[in-house]
Amino acid sequence: MDANSLDNISHADPAQRKDREDRWQQVVAVSAALFAEKGYEATSLREIAERVGMLKGSLYHYINGKSDLLVHVLREAHSRGVLVLTGIAEREGRALERLEDVITAHARYIFTERVFTAGFIEAHRHLTPDRAREFDLAERNYRKAVERLIARGQAEGELRHDIDPKVSALCLLGFLNSLHGWAKPASGLTTRRLCDHALVMGLGGLRKA
Amino acid sequence: MDANSLDNISHADPAQRKDREDRWQQVVAVSAALFAEKGYEATSLREIAERVGMLKGSLYHYINGKSDLLVHVLREAHSRGVLVLTGIAEREGRALERLEDVITAHARYIFTERVFTAGFIEAHRHLTPDRAREFDLAERNYRKAVERLIARGQAEGELRHDIDPKVSALCLLGFLNSLHGWAKPASGLTTRRLCDHALVMGLGGLRKA
Repeated sequence: MDANSLDNISHADPAQRKDREDRWQQVVAVSAALFAEKGYEATSLREIAERVGMLKGSLYHYINGKSDLLVHVLREAHSRGVLVLTGIAEREGRALERLEDVITAHARYIFTERVFTAGFIEAHRHLTPDRAREFDLAERNYRKAVERLIARGQAEGELRHDIDPKVSALCLLGFLNSLHGWAKPASGLTTRRLCDHALVMGLGGLRKA
Repeated sequence: MDANSLDNISHADPAQRKDREDRWQQVVAVSAALFAEKGYEATSLREIAERVGMLKGSLYHYINGKSDLLVHVLREAHSRGVLVLTGIAEREGRALERLEDVITAHARYIFTERVFTAGFIEAHRHLTPDRAREFDLAERNYRKAVERLIARGQAEGELRHDIDPKVSALCLLGFLNSLHGWAKPASGLTTRRLCDHALVMGLGGLRKA
């Protein structure tokens, strides 16, 4: 939600405000789902409004046009994914444990938030480089946090010394993101089973033999 | 090259035939490069012909239209990649060794044949489901061969028993294909260094501790 719409909301009473915020969350979730399902170009504001159960004109309380929704879908996807994962990577505690938690949480996110991960991929494809910058930067921060975590795990004596933290972080995140391509709840795979395999496959190579 | 153009060639003398085959290889390589660089839609037959140094009309000795090139780019990419890798997976020998060879060869292919891997991705996106079938089938065969290899490695006592061969094969191939997203020769990474990391990261989790 941009500064203007937040400003509009702040004039309303708390119940109205809550209602508006809920509506807005729905708009973003429905946009993500439609972008993922039909593609950004084939999705119309009318369709988004219809699915949420509001008039198309009411969407303009929140946005200036469809392209604004790209940014909001990406922000929501990031706030559920990359930002949470960076937080886990940067917590206190032993590196190996944090790395285990990052891998499990990343795999779970990819598997359980398909609407936002698929919506993210589609929305990112249509973003101008200028508007993509904040998301690219957040992803870079996450990658850097994982890189530091691997270096820290080496220093703590639990990860192999003969691997490069940067190359390993790129390998690991590429692997975790690649789960999106095939790991679908409909396949009969459970979250637990996927996370177990992601942990074994993602961490196994990094650990000291 | 389709049956008709092979037929045309067989009437020519050996030197002419060789020349035509070389030209055809160039046409496919240039198509892959242009699809990867500019996208399939933005690439014209005129441009392909110009880069190869032939007249646009001469392309019709080999193909009926631009969409035929999709299939030829994919076949060339498969004959350099998936088909070779399936062959390695199905060789004689201990499973662990074959798996090491598959992982190294797959990582090397992704890294050194960017024109074909990027051309493959772009061409596959524009293929009709009907024409995509032969490639999807070849990829499925490769995945199945890796799955059998993992099961065999478990039976030979060198790979962990608590992982599922199918899920692990999907994880492993997803990881290896994901190298395409970031591992570029221009980054200063060497083939050797990438293959070493791919092997450590790809196989580490599968091996018995």
